[in-house]
Amino acid sequence: MKKVEICLSPELIHLYDVQDKNVVIVDIFRATSTMLAALANGVDSITPVMDLETCKSMANSGYTIAGERNGKTAEGFELGNSPLAYLDNKYSGSKIAMTTTNGTVAIEKTKNVANKIILGAFVNLSATTDFLISEQRDVLILCAGWKGKFNLEDSLFAGALVSNLHPHFGTECDTSIAMKNLYEGNQHRLRIFMGQASHAKRLQNHNIEADIEFCLSLNIYDIIGILEEGKLVAKNPIK
Amino acid sequence: MKKVEICLSPELIHLYDVQDKNVVIVDIFRATSTMLAALANGVDSITPVMDLETCKSMANSGYTIAGERNGKTAEGFELGNSPLAYLDNKYSGSKIAMTTTNGTVAIEKTKNVANKIILGAFVNLSATTDFLISEQRDVLILCAGWKGKFNLEDSLFAGALVSNLHPHFGTECDTSIAMKNLYEGNQHRLRIFMGQASHAKRLQNHNIEADIEFCLSLNIYDIIGILEEGKLVAKNPIK
Repeated sequence: MKKVEICLSPELIHLYDVQDKNVVIVDIFRATSTMLAALANGVDSITPVMDLETCKSMANSGYTIAGERNGKTAEGFELGNSPLAYLDNKYSGSKIAMTTTNGTVAIEKTKNVANKIILGAFVNLSATTDFLISEQRDVLILCAGWKGKFNLEDSLFAGALVSNLHPHFGTECDTSIAMKNLYEGNQHRLRIFMGQASHAKRLQNHNIEADIEFCLSLNIYDIIGILEEGKLVAKNPIK
Repeated sequence: MKKVEICLSPELIHLYDVQDKNVVIVDIFRATSTMLAALANGVDSITPVMDLETCKSMANSGYTIAGERNGKTAEGFELGNSPLAYLDNKYSGSKIAMTTTNGTVAIEKTKNVANKIILGAFVNLSATTDFLISEQRDVLILCAGWKGKFNLEDSLFAGALVSNLHPHFGTECDTSIAMKNLYEGNQHRLRIFMGQASHAKRLQNHNIEADIEFCLSLNIYDIIGILEEGKLVAKNPIK
């Protein structure tokens, strides 16, 4: 039986065997939720970029640039990291270049080794589950965390995905056991539970409450987001 | 209000501010449980040692040597890492030198920076709680994990300690919120829940079931274990 593991932070990724696995990148608040909203709203592709300067320079090559650091839109960028900016097909057809505090680091650390890199978020949990089951390959869920530390929202999503993948996948990894249990015990009060965690972040930035609400919406999209030739694109979950 | 944080692995310790904090080292299966059993059974002191060779050489200086790697007694060592070996005051008065796969690494990584280093385990959870409350100082719980990865037993104990310290300490750290909830949701079935995790380890070593049972015993000792001048010694929880 194929298995699913969770890595709680990019700082721990060297302890995992990434080779040939399907890796699910998770940055619920907000990178992967935002990327999926963009792709579901007709964006042509999203190129993840590590640093602000490189990303900014891509504006000269026909890219719409999105840059976030510490939860805020980086100076000189058209877009920050809000999923709401992409709704109503506002950037349909655009090529986006995006850099974020945590999410793009997680992609960078695994992209040359993994079999496939896909985006994980509550907004398309079922589609992601269907895709991974159809693939019949070991899965590693990589939580982007917050500057290397564990965070609640990414870990809870990882638990939700393990819960959905069970019993199609073996879940013997201690992290999978713990996060599956944590999610299953709190799935009926996710917003309240998550509210404790995001308290500090909400104080830092009063405008992201609508974003948080959006990022916790379940299965509003039926596409998956997948990395192909360095760009994230939308696909149907079943080949 | 003073706060309590959890670091889930020694591999993440560089992300935390250890300075001036009281650090609780947790290695439930079995280093910290064993050390506390030894101290409660009259051992004079335990010197944690990083490597096997240094530890072994201390046999020539009057130390009883305990060495464990990958769950087994290391070659040439009188003691491994079983708490049962110390019961009935069998090593009362002895000076122990001990090296283990995960626990001693966690101590080494924090000992020069922390205010105080104490041992955390289910066997003396209440005493540890009382001590930390009496200290009125920020607490960092450091889980030894398994070769750098998250493990269930250390994380659940960390959650139990946070649960006990609440509401005397602030628990805003995401890891504290998650592990407190995980513990509180499973405290009435700890052995069953933990059984899932230790399955693989038990298969590797059929003799540690009695050890596991012992390590999950709650509050059988009323001492704390604390590092003083490089040695772990027993103290009463309230000064």
